[in-house]
This record gives sequence, structure tokens and C-alpha cells, in this order.
Amino acid sequence: MSLLSLSPKASSLKDKLEKFVNECCIPAEDEYERHIAQLSGADRWTYAAVPPVLDRLKSEAQSLGFWNLFLPHPIPSHLITGGTSSDGDDDVAITPSMYLSNREYGILCEVMGRSSLAPEACNCSAPDTGNMEVLLKHGTEIQQSTYLKPLLQGKIRSAFLMTEPDVASSDARNLQTELKKIVQKDGSVKYILNGKKWWSTGAMDPRCKVALVVAQMDYSDPSCSEGKEPKRGNQTVVIVPMPHPGVKCVRPLTVFGYDDAPHGHAEVWLDNVELDESAVVLGEGRGFEISQSRLGPGRIHHCMRAVGLAARCYELMLERTFQRQTFGKYLHEHGSCREMIADSASDLEAARLLTLACAEDIDRLGARGARDKVAMIKVTVPELTSRVVDRAVQIFGGAGVCGDLPLARALVGLRTLRIADGPDAVHKQSLALLELKKAKQRMQSRV
Amino acid sequence: MSLLSLSPKASSLKDKLEKFVNECCIPAEDEYERHIAQLSGADRWTYAAVPPVLDRLKSEAQSLGFWNLFLPHPIPSHLITGGTSSDGDDDVAITPSMYLSNREYGILCEVMGRSSLAPEACNCSAPDTGNMEVLLKHGTEIQQSTYLKPLLQGKIRSAFLMTEPDVASSDARNLQTELKKIVQKDGSVKYILNGKKWWSTGAMDPRCKVALVVAQMDYSDPSCSEGKEPKRGNQTVVIVPMPHPGVKCVRPLTVFGYDDAPHGHAEVWLDNVELDESAVVLGEGRGFEISQSRLGPGRIHHCMRAVGLAARCYELMLERTFQRQTFGKYLHEHGSCREMIADSASDLEAARLLTLACAEDIDRLGARGARDKVAMIKVTVPELTSRVVDRAVQIFGGAGVCGDLPLARALVGLRTLRIADGPDAVHKQSLALLELKKAKQRMQSRV
Amino acid sequence: MSLLSLSPKASSLKDKLEKFVNECCIPAEDEYERHIAQLSGADRWTYAAVPPVLDRLKSEAQSLGFWNLFLPHPIPSHLITGGTSSDGDDDVAITPSMYLSNREYGILCEVMGRSSLAPEACNCSAPDTGNMEVLLKHGTEIQQSTYLKPLLQGKIRSAFLMTEPDVASSDARNLQTELKKIVQKDGSVKYILNGKKWWSTGAMDPRCKVALVVAQMDYSDPSCSEGKEPKRGNQTVVIVPMPHPGVKCVRPLTVFGYDDAPHGHAEVWLDNVELDESAVVLGEGRGFEISQSRLGPGRIHHCMRAVGLAARCYELMLERTFQRQTFGKYLHEHGSCREMIADSASDLEAARLLTLACAEDIDRLGARGARDKVAMIKVTVPELTSRVVDRAVQIFGGAGVCGDLPLARALVGLRTLRIADGPDAVHKQSLALLELKKAKQRMQSRV
Amino acid sequence: MSLLSLSPKASSLKDKLEKFVNECCIPAEDEYERHIAQLSGADRWTYAAVPPVLDRLKSEAQSLGFWNLFLPHPIPSHLITGGTSSDGDDDVAITPSMYLSNREYGILCEVMGRSSLAPEACNCSAPDTGNMEVLLKHGTEIQQSTYLKPLLQGKIRSAFLMTEPDVASSDARNLQTELKKIVQKDGSVKYILNGKKWWSTGAMDPRCKVALVVAQMDYSDPSCSEGKEPKRGNQTVVIVPMPHPGVKCVRPLTVFGYDDAPHGHAEVWLDNVELDESAVVLGEGRGFEISQSRLGPGRIHHCMRAVGLAARCYELMLERTFQRQTFGKYLHEHGSCREMIADSASDLEAARLLTLACAEDIDRLGARGARDKVAMIKVTVPELTSRVVDRAVQIFGGAGVCGDLPLARALVGLRTLRIADGPDAVHKQSLALLELKKAKQRMQSRV
Repeated sequence: MSLLSLSPKASSLKDKLEKFVNECCIPAEDEYERHIAQLSGADRWTYAAVPPVLDRLKSEAQSLGFWNLFLPHPIPSHLITGGTSSDGDDDVAITPSMYLSNREYGILCEVMGRSSLAPEACNCSAPDTGNMEVLLKHGTEIQQSTYLKPLLQGKIRSAFLMTEPDVASSDARNLQTELKKIVQKDGSVKYILNGKKWWSTGAMDPRCKVALVVAQMDYSDPSCSEGKEPKRGNQTVVIVPMPHPGVKCVRPLTVFGYDDAPHGHAEVWLDNVELDESAVVLGEGRGFEISQSRLGPGRIHHCMRAVGLAARCYELMLERTFQRQTFGKYLHEHGSCREMIADSASDLEAARLLTLACAEDIDRLGARGARDKVAMIKVTVPELTSRVVDRAVQIFGGAGVCGDLPLARALVGLRTLRIADGPDAVHKQSLALLELKKAKQRMQSRV
Repeated sequence: MSLLSLSPKASSLKDKLEKFVNECCIPAEDEYERHIAQLSGADRWTYAAVPPVLDRLKSEAQSLGFWNLFLPHPIPSHLITGGTSSDGDDDVAITPSMYLSNREYGILCEVMGRSSLAPEACNCSAPDTGNMEVLLKHGTEIQQSTYLKPLLQGKIRSAFLMTEPDVASSDARNLQTELKKIVQKDGSVKYILNGKKWWSTGAMDPRCKVALVVAQMDYSDPSCSEGKEPKRGNQTVVIVPMPHPGVKCVRPLTVFGYDDAPHGHAEVWLDNVELDESAVVLGEGRGFEISQSRLGPGRIHHCMRAVGLAARCYELMLERTFQRQTFGKYLHEHGSCREMIADSASDLEAARLLTLACAEDIDRLGARGARDKVAMIKVTVPELTSRVVDRAVQIFGGAGVCGDLPLARALVGLRTLRIADGPDAVHKQSLALLELKKAKQRMQSRV
Repeated sequence: MSLLSLSPKASSLKDKLEKFVNECCIPAEDEYERHIAQLSGADRWTYAAVPPVLDRLKSEAQSLGFWNLFLPHPIPSHLITGGTSSDGDDDVAITPSMYLSNREYGILCEVMGRSSLAPEACNCSAPDTGNMEVLLKHGTEIQQSTYLKPLLQGKIRSAFLMTEPDVASSDARNLQTELKKIVQKDGSVKYILNGKKWWSTGAMDPRCKVALVVAQMDYSDPSCSEGKEPKRGNQTVVIVPMPHPGVKCVRPLTVFGYDDAPHGHAEVWLDNVELDESAVVLGEGRGFEISQSRLGPGRIHHCMRAVGLAARCYELMLERTFQRQTFGKYLHEHGSCREMIADSASDLEAARLLTLACAEDIDRLGARGARDKVAMIKVTVPELTSRVVDRAVQIFGGAGVCGDLPLARALVGLRTLRIADGPDAVHKQSLALLELKKAKQRMQSRV
Repeated sequence: MSLLSLSPKASSLKDKLEKFVNECCIPAEDEYERHIAQLSGADRWTYAAVPPVLDRLKSEAQSLGFWNLFLPHPIPSHLITGGTSSDGDDDVAITPSMYLSNREYGILCEVMGRSSLAPEACNCSAPDTGNMEVLLKHGTEIQQSTYLKPLLQGKIRSAFLMTEPDVASSDARNLQTELKKIVQKDGSVKYILNGKKWWSTGAMDPRCKVALVVAQMDYSDPSCSEGKEPKRGNQTVVIVPMPHPGVKCVRPLTVFGYDDAPHGHAEVWLDNVELDESAVVLGEGRGFEISQSRLGPGRIHHCMRAVGLAARCYELMLERTFQRQTFGKYLHEHGSCREMIADSASDLEAARLLTLACAEDIDRLGARGARDKVAMIKVTVPELTSRVVDRAVQIFGGAGVCGDLPLARALVGLRTLRIADGPDAVHKQSLALLELKKAKQRMQSRV
């Protein structure tokens, strides 16, 4: 049986999802873009900047059952039967009809990746999916009721604050944001969060109501000092309700000229953000564990969406070759153009197979057991899909670099994937170390 | 003697220009960017969008003698001693102090390429330089007085309208913009220009006062038909004063999210633009000749500016490696980072040498005799310099893709060079045909 | 389920085969090489050049059940129960214990590819497997008894004569070898075969007892002319017993300095080889059909053996990094070395997955339905595996290019795969045409 | 003036040399190859293996003045007027008619590189040129009379023994061959040389009469111990007359299947080779200095010969495209073939310019001042020229990988250049360190 095979039920889901993406999401992209293009400055980060077409797509996706498909297993009953979602409106179906393996959900991610609108329409977009997984796995019942439920309902959005401007954040030990612990006289604990973050995707989104922040424990306060030597502890993840007076979104960052409003990427200064114990996820010092657990499935999603996006660009390129002529021949009749097609078909197929094989390893061995494959796709898939889109841009010429087609944005988006969640160099080192470890074991077993 | 060597006089010019670029232009970039960033919508294409800092730089460049350095030989005296420049102000020195070869000017282009502001500050930016060359070589005295003089003075800017949205413009025979000739009863001639252009760089610039337009001759009007069979003639270049009621800049195009205001790239509809004989440059049907003659030196300029831009990014990358640490080591201590440095040094040097060798061929053999080298650098230099900037982006991580550094814009700018003036595929074919011709001659000489 | 998964029975077979290859075949390579190295000139193409160790390995493989594993389904009973094998010795088990799918056999090919001796030891080496498949599918009972049976028994070897020195053979229509048909007075038919072939792998092998030759039908003889206009017909495959007085092996060809004796690659002149009707396979003019049907599964075998060979080189490289030091560190501690490891792991995995996905397509859709994937792996797998071995050579330095390790031969062998059975360019064109056809159908279905 | 320009005198020399190479050397290659091909085993390393055609070419080169052109400046008069050359025959003109700069000689190296026979025909082949330079710069008058003179006369050949099989020799500190110093009772000194070398090019050549050996000083003998603490000193170069009973050429090494007889590459065991003080070149512990000084100009020679070889392969490929047809078109009419031509033209030109710019830096700044460029070409030129030859192989198909054309040997020869004199990784590190040093200086100068 194939990496590409699906159960009959999932296969039918895929067919319907393809129809939804191709016939509803892709045609809506223009309206979405036009809506945002007319706004400037601060207006781009308000509710007015959220294109109404998105809500239409979300309703449709919900009614078709394409909702929260990323969820790997059933959610706690308290999230379904009641809770404290912001507006008391609990009539939204928040659980998918079936629980998919990473491999199966990966195949759907390729479909959703074809349109920039599909993941959000299906409540399957980053960083929300990762945050929902964290809250589902590690959140308290109150954290789940307060934040997870409205996220699952698609009523709010969220941010994950990890990367920092002043250090190479690919080495997590470099992080400087500090969570100072203070034991108060009554024995209760409070935390003060200080630091600078950037590439905080979604932090400026008007719908963003919660941020998960990774910070270094700071035990230097005298109230903590009884017997504890190390002033500096491991990382902790805390929940900060958004917007928050101490969380200052100082500016939107552009990605090669795109600000991606209204979701965007913010530089955020954390200025004496005061939190109590209920803000901590899983426990003090367990931040690394949490950020690691986000990564495996998250990379499958990213990579398969990248494959879907590149596949769409590839199809556009194929069609273009039937429409344009140079030197008396259609583009598709030129040998060099055909080589670009063949190379792209191969690159796409390799990217797809590598990612699905990794997804299957996660399904079979867990994210930890699949670390080698996860590192492998983190590096190779952005590279392979970039090449495909780069060729599509080249075939389209001027149309490929402007805003008339999804190509230009796709190319820089895929380029950015080589940096997001750590640059290639870091993941190649990880993969090599795992390979060297296996080699060492083989050598020792022979002696 | 080396490709890199300069006469003592030119060498001193280069040193002073480097100082000007590094100490005046580069530090002014932030002010320039901030000025434009605050404007939105249509405001970005008004005089208000032209940052005042630019005028300061232009004055300084003029007073230092860095003005119109691209001019290969003295200009007609009527341009110096009088004429009809728009405001009668002729006190501007418009001729450079020395006339440089393409190789020597190329070396200065590398220096100017380091800052996005330097070429314009020195009145050496595209498409003005190409347009000035055309007017200098082929313009009538009146065309020169009216348009060339203020261009040389830096008082106005210009556009060159060639590429079209509806056809693959890399094959010039595809162009559809038509120049209909009508012989009037009194024997005088009038022309009607119709068509669509895009990637018309500078056409929306408020300072743009003249456009050169490439159009296909249309002799279908009965007034032309006496004895002339072919209804469709070769291409002609005409001068259109700007702004013009028949020239509609329908929208700015973005390049990977950048609109490059206030200069920018427009889609332009030519709607019954009426012109008389004085608008024709060189003669009817001589458009291909004109556009070809622009290309040789223009590519040297583009390529050497690309080298300068990549060299700046490379230096920023080198400095970054001393500032950031991962896994207990500075970036420059990591072996894989060092490989990126070595590869970049080699790529830059290859790009530089190839371009200067081509410039020297143009100096020695003329642009036509150097066609093989011109095609060669058109393809290789964007590729080589892109690789350098791509590595710099990778070393910088998040900072590399946002607007804080010139890297992101540089990367997409160099990517676009692989399309501008014809995609790689076209120039590779040209180069191959020239190589095959030489091979055939060698084979025949042996028989 | 994974592309890499096997049934329990096949999985156990794989484990045992790995043991056989690693513990019997690989250790025997030195003896094999030394045996051949001592011979020179014509001696290299005699029975004396066949290293005795090979027979030992073949016996062992037979007794372990690793024999003719490539056979996809049971063979005719007459081949098992009797027949006319050259020496009447029919006690050799010629059928495998299980009939594997292309995907499953592919996984075993990777294992066999690790040692240059394993495929022949298991009677699974080219071109015999392809020839056996042809005879099994298309041979008459007599052809099967005479040639297929001893081939299945591993008693003889065979050659496939297709490529020609004087034409670009990647375009099969270019072939010039002619099969002249003559209808004799008694109505019986005879054929005269004339032409030049090269890269005739195995034709000089002393054990080669049969050659399949592809030739163009020549109906120009007057005896054929009644009513038949076209003098030149399609290609036909004929069987020629070897050695044969009209089949002149004029010289061995080297592959980057290796002659691969005693199997080798011959230039062969066919000089008035007289054959009767029993020599024709399947029928006159059906040669293209036959050579196409060889290709699908054959490419799986080639590609997976390439993966196995590259995997072995990769493992050697990993081990080397623990043994050598430069500049105070083991090779594996150098960042640039680790990048080579990571890239190789990714390349290997991509090559493996692409090939197995193609094998599965052949299993599911037949070779014709999998043409796109077959073309894809024909191009990508030699490229991907070459890169891996190239890095291994680089890590080993001098030891990598000499005869002490399998690396040098592997590198040029994989390089040659980019040419054998047609150069990359041809297969990229085929793949592109299939992709374009699919695109056209998509476009039409939307109208 | 160009990197490619020559003085009129040198230009005329180049024209005549081209004629000699194209009309005498290249046509003689077949005879040379056939002569060697008929010999096997030990016979390949005897005087009988030296093809007579070589002496004819050498005489012709001498009479035409193409002799010892690599010599950068006049040689001591004692080498011209007398001395102790082996056979007393001093009538051979050993000095070139003009002393060329590295850049000018580099241009001639490209010409000589076109034929495998030309460098030796002109007494300009490795490792003799490097050894002659060492002896000319650092040799005593006796060393010069004994070894340098017959080398300059082309009467003997030589070897340079540096690389070792048991250590990564790219890090010179790893070398294990030891030169034990013993101070004898009479105060005189003797040395005992022990160790293993490989890739000792030319050591098995019957004409090899002298070897320069790099060894680590060993001062552990009690006779050295007065006051000297370190038992192990720096490296020393010693001269060993060849053949020598203690110098055992244990086997020839192959380079991808080629043994390059009769010159070849030997594994050599140094077994208690006894030497006296006259054997030391320059002085104890000065070996690193000597081996470094060989490298700069030597790399120009290697790289420009590589360019010449690749240029020849490129020209063969161009011609082939006029001779073969596939799918109804000549190869040169296929777009993908034209891309291969264009890319090759660019690669060749880049390789040529980089090397000549480096040569000019050596001329201007000395080998030490040009270290960055020397490292740069060491890495890039084998890579660029390999790509060219790889494409030529691909265009030729089967003919490209066998012995009928110089392509196959060229490809593996260029591949081996990436390893010889240190692998790419080492030279990239050196280049990066030099670039980082410059960057640091720039940064400091700004503070």
C-alpha cells in the first residue's frame, strides 16, 4: 500500500476538500487581497482589515465538515458540553468527524496549501494549530475552557512568541526573555515577564486573544533563593491574554515587502507583564519540552502545505506554456521549458514522498522517533518546492514577480521557510548527529 | 595589467566615490525609506513622495564631480551653452570631468550599486541613462534640447516603454502596441499610438516628463497604402511627453511585495496618443536597432551594480558572523558558515571578472562584437550575485527577510534581473547560437 | 502502510539476504577483484577470468533460496520438469519460493546493490533478468527450453544488443542494423543480420551463450516484394546463439578506465549472420514493444541497486569520519562534513522513496501506466545517488578515487547510468510530455 | 588592458604553441595510448612503456623554443656552462627564450592543457616543474648540478612524496614519515628516513631519478639530545636519488580505473633510507615553507591546464552537435542542448578569468599575498571545468565514457583535482579565514 493511499472515508473527504479549495477558496483570494490592499497604516491591523469573505468560507467549511481536521484524537468532553467561551455561544461543532493520522492529515494539508485562504477557512492555520495542540495536551481544564475552546470554535486567534531579535534564536539556550518568579508573602507566586520578541506571527491580529510565550526562568529574586543555587532556570511557557497592556506590538515586520496583514508578524516588547500561577503551561522549566512537541506534526503541516502551494504554481506554469509563444513556438514546445517541467515534477514528487514518509514515521514511532526525518524534511522540502516555484516565476516572467498571481508571494514564503523554526544549518547538524549515532552503533555492533 | 586596474585619475575618482557612497548615500537610506513608508495609496506617486534627502545627495554628487559619469564621450555644445530646458536654468554642470571606458565606468557602477540611492544621486540610474544615450546618439537637436538637456541636468526623469502584458515580450516580434501612420492632406504625417505596456519603470514617477515607447508600425491606413504592400512594419521608437492624457498609468506593479515608489513600475495603457513627426527617434522602423544599442552598456551597468549590491550584503554577512553565537561558537567559527563565506567570495569575484571582461570587449569590439559576453553576463551575474545574497539572508535569519537590512530587497531585485530584459532562456539561446557559429567556422576552416 | 513495508515473509527474506550480502558477498569482493587483476589482454575474457568465488556464492544463494527472485510469477511447467538444458542437469531449483511485487523485489534490489557480486550470485543481474523476462513472456516453448532454462539455472549468461556506435541510439528510429528477410524457394524464410552494435554488455563473457539483437526489418529482397511497398519495416528482436562466427566482438569498451571483465561491454560487428524463423521473438516488427516492456521493471532494479550501492558508500563515509582527524578534530566534528552527511541522508531517502513509489505504480497500473514515474526515476536516481557517492569520495580523498574501496567505481558507474538506456534529456522530454498531456486534460475539463 | 592580453612576443609564442599542440601533440595521442595499452603488469613501468613518440615531440618542442617555459627568470650560469649531468651531454638548450609572468605563462598552460602530451613534450609537466622550482630557489650548487640540470634538460624525471595513506594529509601536521637525525662521532650528521607515502606521482616512472620527500624531523636519538627538549621538529624536505634500495614502490594506484602508466601514482614505503647532510633542501625544519612555495604558481598551472582540457572537450561537444540527430533534429537544434552549450561557455570563461586574475595577483603581490585567490581557484576551477566536461560526456553518450575520446579521462582527472593538494573543504576554510580577517580589519577601522 502506498504512502499516498487513504482509507475510503478519508479519500472521499479529500475529494470534497479539493472541490472546496478549488471552487471556493481559490476564487475568493482576489476579493480577500483587494479588501486588504485598500487599507493602509494602522488600519491594516484592525477588525476592518479582516475580509468578510473569510467568515463565509469558514461557515462553509464547518458545514462541510472540514473543521479542525488537524486534531489527532477526541477532545475532552468539557470542551464540547459547556465552558466559558467568550460569548456563551457553544453551538459550533468543534470536533472533526474523523481523527486522521499524520500521514492522512498531511495529504489534506497539501490540498489546503493550494490556497492561502484554505487553512484558516478550515481552522487549521498556524500558529493556532500548534497552540491548540499544546493546550490540548498540556493545558489545565481552565486554560482549555478559556482559550482552547474559542480557538477550536474559530472565534479567536493566537500567537506563539519565541524568536528574539537580539540573539540567534535557533539555539534556544540563547533566549533572553525572562520570567522572574516572586514568591509572595502569602505563599502565592507571581511572575514578571520581560523581554523582546519578534516574528511573533499573529500578535497584531485584531482577533488574537491569547499568546503563548517562551521565557527563561529567572530565580534571582530573593524570595526564591532559599537553597536554590542556580539563578537561571530552564525555559517555561506562559499564557498571556491578548491584548495586554504590557505586551507592546511595536511594529509589523515585512517578509520581502509583504506585511501579511491582518495576521502579520510583529516585533513585540514584553514590559513587566505580571502573571500568576495559572499562566504557566505544564510547569516551570518545561518550555523546551513543549516547543519540541509542537514541531514534529507542525513540520508535516508546513511541508505539505508547501507542496500544495508549489503544486498549484506548477499547474499554473503548465497552463502558461500553452498560452504564450516565443520564436514561433509555444513555450511547451521549447526543449528547455520541458526540462523545467520534468525537473519540477520530480522535485514535487520527492518533496511529497519525503514528507509523507516522515508523517508515517511520526505515526508509527512518535515525533521523537522520527526526529531524523523531521529534520530532513525541514531542510529539503522548502528547497525542493522553492525550485518548482522559481521555475514557474521564470516561465511567467514579469507576471511571476508581481501581485497578479500567487507565485511571487509563494517564492518568498518558501524562502522564508528555510529560516522559520531554525535555519537549514541547524537542522542539518541535528540530522547528521542522528546519522552519526546510528553509524557508531553499527560500528560497535560489529566489534 | 588587470581588469580591475584604473588610470590614476579614475582611481582617485573611485576612492572619492566610495567615500561618498559609504558615508553619504548608505547612511541616508533609512531617512529615504522612512519618508516613503509614511505615505500610502496615490500619495506614493506624487512629488511629496520624493524624499528631500535625495536632492541633498544630488547636489553633493554634482559638486564632487560624480555627475553623468556614464557618458562615454563629450556631448554636443548646444546642450551646454544654451537650449530650452524647462526653467531656463543652465548653470548646472552636466558633463562629467572625464569620459570613462565601459570597463572603468563599470568599476564605478559597482561602487554606486552598494547603495540604492547612489545611482540616482549621481544621475546615473536606469532607465534614464539608457534614454539619455539614445537621445544623445540618435536624437534631433530639438529632441536633445527639449528632453536630453533636463535629463542631463537631473531636473526630470524618464521612462522606457517596451514590455507588454499580453505577449511574451522577450521575443520582440510579439509586440502588439501599434503606431498607426496617417498621411494628412497637407502631406504632413501624424501617428496614433495604441497599446498596453507594463513594467514601465518610472512611468508613474511625478518627475517623469518623457517616455520612449517601442511600437510596431501600422501602415494599414489608406493614406499610406500607395504601393506599399506590407501593412505591418518594423518597430519604431517614439517620444511621448509625460504626463500625457492618452497615457494612462492604470496601476503600479509590485515586485515581490515592493512597489518601489515613487519611481515604481507601471502598467500603462496607450489610448490614441497622437504624435507628429518630431516624435520619431532615428526613423520609422528603426526601433529594434535602438533597443539593441541600449543593451550592451546597460547590462554592464546592471551587472556591476548587482555586484556592488551583493558585495555590500556579503560584507554585512561577514560582520554578522562576529556578532552572533550559536551552540557556544560565533557563527564565523562554524565550518558550514565558513563554506558559505568562501563560496560567496568566489561567486562575487567571478561575477565581477566576467562583467569587466565583457565591458572591455565592448570597449574594444563594440556592443555588437561583444554580444556573446553580453548574453553571458546577463545570465550568470544575476545567478552568481543572487547566491551571495541568498547566503547572507540565511546567515541573518529573520533579520534577512524583513525591511531592517537591504538584504531582502536585494534578493528579490536580483531575482527579477533574471527576467528583466528577457529571461535567461532567451539569452542562453543567443549565446549558444554564437558559440555554434564559431564552432562551425572552426570546422569549416579545417576541411 | 509504508512504501518500505514488507509482508512478514518478504521481510524475513530481506533480513536473510542482508546477512548473505554483508557477510558473504562483500567480503568476497577482494578475492574476486584480485583474481581478475592478475589477467591481462585476451585472457580477461576467458573462463579462466571467472573467479571461482562466484560459483561458491551462487551455490550458497541457491541453497538459501535467493535465486531468481526477480521472477514476478510462476514459470511454465515444462521448464521445471524437463527440457533440453545444455548438460541435461535439471536438478537446479530455478523458481523462487515466492513471487514478489515490483515494490517488494525493489527493496531486495537495494540489498543486492550493496555488493557488486550479489546480483550475479542470486542470478538477478542485468542483462540476464531482462532477457529472461522477454523469453518468459514472449518466447516459444523451444526458445524457452533452449535458452531460458539454462539462464534460469544460472548455467549460461546472455547479452542484449541494441545500442549502435554510428547513430544516436536514444532515438530508436535511428538504428541501422538490418535484418534482411529472404523467402526461399521452398517457402521457408531465412534472415541475414548485418550491422554494428556497441555497449553490448556481456557479449564477450565466455559464459554468454545467447544474444538478443534488435534490428530493423529489411524487406528489400525481391523475394519479399510481392505487393509489399515499404522496403523498411519496424524493428524485430532475434535470438542469436553465442558464440557465433558472424558475431565479431571487435573490442572491449572501457567505462572510465574499467573494462569490467569478464562480463564487460563489447563493440560487436554483425556480419551476415544467418538465422531462420525460429530466431524471431514474438514476431517481425515487434521489437519496439519488446524493448519497451523490458524497461519498466528493469529501471526499478537499476535504481534500487544504485540506492544500495550509494547507501554502502554512505556508510563507509560515516565510518571514515570517526577515523580521520584534521586540524585537531575528527572529520565528523567539522560542520561542513556534517552538512555532507545530512545532504546525503536526504538524497538517499528521496531516491529510495521515488523508486519504490514508481515500483508500486508499476504493480498497480502496469509499466505503461507508470511511464511518468519510470522516466522520473531514470533521471533523478542516478543524480541523487551520484551526489551521495561524490561526497563519500571527497571525504575519503585519495582513497576514494583509487581501487581500495568501491567508491571510485561506484561514482563512474552511477555517472554512466545517466547515459545507459538513453540520456537524461530524452527521459525529461518524455516526462514533460506526459505532464503536459495531463495539464491539457485538466484545462479542457474546466471549459 | 585585458587579463587575456599578451605582449606581441608572447602572443606570437602562443600562436605557434597552439599550432604545435593542435597539429603535433593531439594527433600523437592515439599512438601514445596504443603503445601503452599493449603492455600489462610490471611491463607498464619500464622504459619499454615510454612511447617513442614522446621523444619526437620533445625534440620538436625544443627546436621550436617551447622548452622550460615555466621558468620565471634566468637560471644560474653554472647550469648552462657545465656541471655533472648524467651523460655529460650539455648541448641541450635548457633556458627558454623569454621569461614569462605567471599570467602570461598561465595563458600558455591553457594551450598545453589541451593535449595530455603537450606539458611533458615542453618539459613543463608536474611534478617536475614544482621540483625544478624548489631546486632552483633553494638547492645548493651541487644539488642543482646533479638533479636540476638533467631535469631542465628533460633527461630525467622526478617525484614529490608528501601525501600519506594513514593520515588525513590535508592537515600537514598529521604527516608521520620521520627523518631521524643522528649526530655521528665525527660530528657529521646522518639521517634515517622511514614512513609510508602514496599518491607519489611519477615514483614508478622508469625515468624517475630523484624524489623530494617531506618528513617530520625526529630528534629523539640520544645523539641529538643535548639541551634540545622537543623530540619532534618541523618538517624537512630531503632529496633521495631514485631508484633507491630503501624506497619501495609497493604498487601503482589507479585513478578511477586508469593507472596512468608509465608515470602513474605509487604507494611507496620508505624503509630505513640513509641520507647525509647533502640531502637536505634549504635546512632542517623548513619543509612547510618549501611545500607552500610550490603551491601558488603550481595551482595556476593546474587550473589553466584544466581550462585547456575542458575547452578541448567543449569544442568536441560543439562539433558533435552538428553530427548527431535525434527526433528529427540535430543535437544543436535542441533547446536543452543549447542551454548546455551556453552554460559551458560561461563556466569556461569564469574559470579562465578567475585563474588569470589570480596569476596576476601572484605576479603583483607574490604567492603569499595572493593566498585568497589561490585558494579560490583551487576550489572553483575544478568544479567549473568538471561541469563543462560532464556536459560534454552527456552529449556524447556512450562515446563519452569509453576510451575513444579524451572526455572520460578528463572528467575523472578533474574530479581528482578536487582532492589533490587538499580537498575543497580545507581550501574553503583558508579562503574564509582570509576574508574574515579582512572583515575584522574593516570593522576595526570604522570604530
